[in-house]
Amino acid sequence: MAKSQALHTNMGVDYVIVFRFKPSEKAKATASFEKLCHKLSSVGLATEVRNGEDSSVLVFVKVASDEHMHAEIYRSRVKDWIHGVRSSEPPRDIRASLEQDPLTDAERLRIIYQLITNYEEEGGAGIRPKSREWEFVENVFALHDHTFNKHWIKEWATKYRVTIDDLDDIRNRFGEKVAYYFAFENTYFTFLIPPTVVGILAYFILGSFSPFYAALQCLWSVVFVEWWKHQERDLALRWGVRGVSNIESKRHEFHATKQVEDPATGETQKVFPWSERLQRQLLQIPFAFIAALVLGSLICLCFAIEIFIGEVYSGPGKSVLTFTPTVILTTCLPLLTGAMSNLAKRLNDYENYETDSQYDRQHTGKLFVLDFITSYMGIMLTAFVYVPFGSVLVPSLDVFGKVLAKDESQLNTAAKKGFTINPDRLRKQVIYFAVTASIVNFAMEVVVPYFKRQGLIKFKEMTAKGTNSGLQPSANAEDPPDEKEFLDRVRSEAGLPAYDVYTDLREMIIQFGYLSLFGVVWPLVPASYLVNNWFELRADAVKICIEMQRPTPWRADTIGPWLDALSFLTWFGSITVAALTYMFSNDGIGPDGRPHDIKAWGLLLSIFFSEHLYLFVHHIVADAISRIDSPGRQKERRDRYLTRQKLFQNSLEKLPQTVQTDDSNSAPITRATLEEDARQGSLKSSTPIEQFWSRQKGWRESAKMGQLYIEKAIDEKEAAKGKKEL
Amino acid sequence: MAKSQALHTNMGVDYVIVFRFKPSEKAKATASFEKLCHKLSSVGLATEVRNGEDSSVLVFVKVASDEHMHAEIYRSRVKDWIHGVRSSEPPRDIRASLEQDPLTDAERLRIIYQLITNYEEEGGAGIRPKSREWEFVENVFALHDHTFNKHWIKEWATKYRVTIDDLDDIRNRFGEKVAYYFAFENTYFTFLIPPTVVGILAYFILGSFSPFYAALQCLWSVVFVEWWKHQERDLALRWGVRGVSNIESKRHEFHATKQVEDPATGETQKVFPWSERLQRQLLQIPFAFIAALVLGSLICLCFAIEIFIGEVYSGPGKSVLTFTPTVILTTCLPLLTGAMSNLAKRLNDYENYETDSQYDRQHTGKLFVLDFITSYMGIMLTAFVYVPFGSVLVPSLDVFGKVLAKDESQLNTAAKKGFTINPDRLRKQVIYFAVTASIVNFAMEVVVPYFKRQGLIKFKEMTAKGTNSGLQPSANAEDPPDEKEFLDRVRSEAGLPAYDVYTDLREMIIQFGYLSLFGVVWPLVPASYLVNNWFELRADAVKICIEMQRPTPWRADTIGPWLDALSFLTWFGSITVAALTYMFSNDGIGPDGRPHDIKAWGLLLSIFFSEHLYLFVHHIVADAISRIDSPGRQKERRDRYLTRQKLFQNSLEKLPQTVQTDDSNSAPITRATLEEDARQGSLKSSTPIEQFWSRQKGWRESAKMGQLYIEKAIDEKEAAKGKKEL
Repeated sequence: MAKSQALHTNMGVDYVIVFRFKPSEKAKATASFEKLCHKLSSVGLATEVRNGEDSSVLVFVKVASDEHMHAEIYRSRVKDWIHGVRSSEPPRDIRASLEQDPLTDAERLRIIYQLITNYEEEGGAGIRPKSREWEFVENVFALHDHTFNKHWIKEWATKYRVTIDDLDDIRNRFGEKVAYYFAFENTYFTFLIPPTVVGILAYFILGSFSPFYAALQCLWSVVFVEWWKHQERDLALRWGVRGVSNIESKRHEFHATKQVEDPATGETQKVFPWSERLQRQLLQIPFAFIAALVLGSLICLCFAIEIFIGEVYSGPGKSVLTFTPTVILTTCLPLLTGAMSNLAKRLNDYENYETDSQYDRQHTGKLFVLDFITSYMGIMLTAFVYVPFGSVLVPSLDVFGKVLAKDESQLNTAAKKGFTINPDRLRKQVIYFAVTASIVNFAMEVVVPYFKRQGLIKFKEMTAKGTNSGLQPSANAEDPPDEKEFLDRVRSEAGLPAYDVYTDLREMIIQFGYLSLFGVVWPLVPASYLVNNWFELRADAVKICIEMQRPTPWRADTIGPWLDALSFLTWFGSITVAALTYMFSNDGIGPDGRPHDIKAWGLLLSIFFSEHLYLFVHHIVADAISRIDSPGRQKERRDRYLTRQKLFQNSLEKLPQTVQTDDSNSAPITRATLEEDARQGSLKSSTPIEQFWSRQKGWRESAKMGQLYIEKAIDEKEAAKGKKEL
Repeated sequence: MAKSQALHTNMGVDYVIVFRFKPSEKAKATASFEKLCHKLSSVGLATEVRNGEDSSVLVFVKVASDEHMHAEIYRSRVKDWIHGVRSSEPPRDIRASLEQDPLTDAERLRIIYQLITNYEEEGGAGIRPKSREWEFVENVFALHDHTFNKHWIKEWATKYRVTIDDLDDIRNRFGEKVAYYFAFENTYFTFLIPPTVVGILAYFILGSFSPFYAALQCLWSVVFVEWWKHQERDLALRWGVRGVSNIESKRHEFHATKQVEDPATGETQKVFPWSERLQRQLLQIPFAFIAALVLGSLICLCFAIEIFIGEVYSGPGKSVLTFTPTVILTTCLPLLTGAMSNLAKRLNDYENYETDSQYDRQHTGKLFVLDFITSYMGIMLTAFVYVPFGSVLVPSLDVFGKVLAKDESQLNTAAKKGFTINPDRLRKQVIYFAVTASIVNFAMEVVVPYFKRQGLIKFKEMTAKGTNSGLQPSANAEDPPDEKEFLDRVRSEAGLPAYDVYTDLREMIIQFGYLSLFGVVWPLVPASYLVNNWFELRADAVKICIEMQRPTPWRADTIGPWLDALSFLTWFGSITVAALTYMFSNDGIGPDGRPHDIKAWGLLLSIFFSEHLYLFVHHIVADAISRIDSPGRQKERRDRYLTRQKLFQNSLEKLPQTVQTDDSNSAPITRATLEEDARQGSLKSSTPIEQFWSRQKGWRESAKMGQLYIEKAIDEKEAAKGKKEL
């Protein structure tokens, strides 16, 4: 009971700061710690200190004086308003504005976090974990709200569909950035249903590589991506974060090379010339090449070995040797990928972006290149190298033969006299990525960490026992009894890794890639992903609640750079699918197991056709979807409408009224009088212009005059006619 | 002297309304005329009436009371501000706001025009020429400012380059819409210089179809289009019209099918469901097909005949028959094109767009399809049908043979035994469009109208004489002597056609198309266009000043739909150029005059390659250009900066100050005292939370506590180490 109670109270703690000191630097540590507490209190945060695990101290932080809090809230809201995120200025009186739109958990935590980490000139305490100034501050994290978490997991575990309200809850707890991930995954999940159905039908009726299914699937990808863009925008409006990504937070690593006075604003700015950055960005091209080369060659190598051993070699130890490629991949690939991502990061740093958003965008882009190669190259090799050219290339694999096989006899004779390729290889590979890989993934993500953690706890307990028997005491030795459990909990949460939404999103995108690039090979891919994602969605919830520290609730109005990745994959899909369909459309069976011999021009033509069809359809779909109305858009429209109305009323209220032309007292006029007037006018007035305008007075005269002209003209016409007739 | 004087005064007339009545409807005409004068005066416009030519009356209009004028100005400026065209609200006092930014000629005329034509509920007189209500009002036009025109033409005739100031002048007189045309033409002209140089070099060094030149030329097109986008935006900022195209003016032809209450704004709106429009828009696809079919087949036919007569037929009357295709084209093509454009218009009306901008955009798009076919199909036939397949197809032209030639002997024997195609045909065609066509065009545009007009004047004089001799008198019979010349001038201007910037722009775009699609055939194309456009630019100035009525100065912030056309042509160019280069790269000479026999896959591959290269380069160029700073952008930035600063100052001035944490009177604390405090705290306070937060008071205690923890931990570690060592 006490346990659950301890679980469900956070003692009003907003954030916990982990202060981990090096035993060697006692004096420095104590000094820095004092500074820490002082800074915190100077921005109106109350502090409590408790003992942490292995040479660390836990600082519990809560808001003591609301002033700073409110100041921070107000500042952020004004900023929003000025950047057009809020449609109206927040009221000066902060309490009032808080009644208007009260703080969510997420906003509150975000603002406190800013209070802690923002620089002093921005009104914060300037405590940035692991920064040079605060090397001992290891981490600043919020405590989980277990009441909510329990409820959340329980609810999702039992329901089939995730609703928009569920997303709202997530947003209110973990911020928009996390909410967007769940929103995306959920949309993706829902969208997978139609292709699942179609896919199953296609599987039993059309079989693989049916052009019809291929077309449907491409169309589906287009619609999905465009729809997501639509919904993303809609959510941004619903959550009132549209445009936050424009609120540029300057990177602190950005170092300017030039001091220029902005000709516009007149203030001197520290800038980094765009031309120079462009030059640096050109390095991306060699980078991409190198990545392709390094990773590519490794994959090719393993691929070759695998084929050789699988299909050519038949000597001793084949059963063992079969695993060599797997071994090589699992050992070398992570190393190389790590190295390349490292290179990517350094290149990105070198490109020296001014804002975080730019930086992330570019960084993601670079990493996506790596992901693209590592994820899809294997299948592509099978589809576009092994199958068409296999019978030409494979025999040349005898180089391995030289190494492994003692004598020729150990090589498949088939290899020499017209090697036949294995047409099923491609399908096997796709199925692997569609089913096996995602199961493995799931295990790695959920099951393994769980056991790891259990093990760690066990281990700690044992060491604790060990220490109790004489050596140094465990951290909780001198906890006050009624806090013991709470503190234990905090300590364990302090030990958890930080949640990064990036990796989860990445996983989804890559999965989508498999579907849109190779879905046509095995129509059941969507079905398998549908099942997988149902669990994935829940597993991620569990992961966040149990295996990760509570993420700092950042805002976002998009999944950002991943959108580009999605669009690219859809586009690229239109090419691969066309190629695959053309090559294997007779189900991959042909002479020497190779599909009906492929005409280069046929292949290219089908690609050309399908790609341009894609571009056309994409254009139409995007256009159509952009017209669809939605709650978010209605909200936006309402706001804009109200603002405009207000402005109009303010502006137009004192417009002059239309003049009442009163020319009641005008004598009945004939042509004679008019001309008389004109003549007199001409006498009086001096300049020709005055004369010109003085011939007729008031509109009645003009009208009369005109009518006279008209009548005259018509009369004359008739007269003329009459004359003629005579 | 008097003449020139008459030329240079407009008698302070702002607009002239041509009221042309049907002799048959006397009563109706007079009534309507009275209404006209009344309406005009009711919006504070003074009127003078004079006799017009053949059964028409001229109504001269000037602003009498400034109130309406000012109201209109203010209204339009507020509208601008609310739509974000102006960065700041215009001052309430209109006189002040007029001192701030005085009216240009263009703005003044625009606003008076609106005053005349806007509906009454919008504060105008609601006089729309040729509308059902105002069937007799033929036209509302402003008088030319001959002083400016003279100066303008003289200046341009003598100077080589048109500067931005010249464009400003045009903008101030004729409005942004016209100014944009000149800006575009000028930019295009300037951009033609580099390819001219390169082209001439290529002509003498590389010859036609050099891949190198092709690549350069594609790159050039991309840069040009992107740069224009950049400059367009820049001009919009310079002229303060950025975003005017968002100020949606509802079409009066738009008829709504549904009355829905907008869930957002709550007001009932008349709408036309987007889904239905989308369905209607789908008709564009058959339309495009039909257009291609109708026009295409005609062109094909003529093409076939031409080839047959030119290269196969050798019977009697060849010299005459040679012209048949030309005759057919010049007679039928205009008819068909007219019919199709008519169809396009009706289709566009049927699609029932809500705003003028949408309508124009779509309409232009449709017409562009027609232009595209009529302009480029001929050359494409030569390049992609005649040359590659000529030797197959031409012999089948004997069908004509059957018709024309009495006996086989009259057919080129060559036609039967392996007909050889004429490799030079393509180049000839391109040269025709590059040189001959543009000269003809020039003549049609400038010279012909001039003579036509002279002729007309002569004719009028003669008829006038005729009438003076007894029949109905000419219009100027009873003009006051001192107005005679002025009125003559006005009458002749009233007789001029209205200027439409659309046609001129269209011409330029199509020209650009020839260059970007087929420039590679004959490297001198840019040179010829450079020369042509130097004259074109001046000719258009002359045209506007002399041969057209003064255009109503509309605003614009883009050349609008033509941008899409430009982008499309550049894209399409990347395909055609690649194809042409591949096919003719050995200068078109090959066996049977046909280029080296063409591999379909090679052709497709080169297209595929070049197109994706284009997409990639386009992406980079667009990105790079978008970073370039410019006066316009600086202005924009300054405005935004100032606004933000203002807002910030207003909002953030009364932010709370940081609290001074005063804990001076705190006794020196030891661990004992601290824990004592804690214990007592726990006794006093009730809830665990209070206890939790009461253990340490103020940041000093927390700091101290933490330091104690740290020291303790370190001491114990050392102790433990010590123990071990023993």
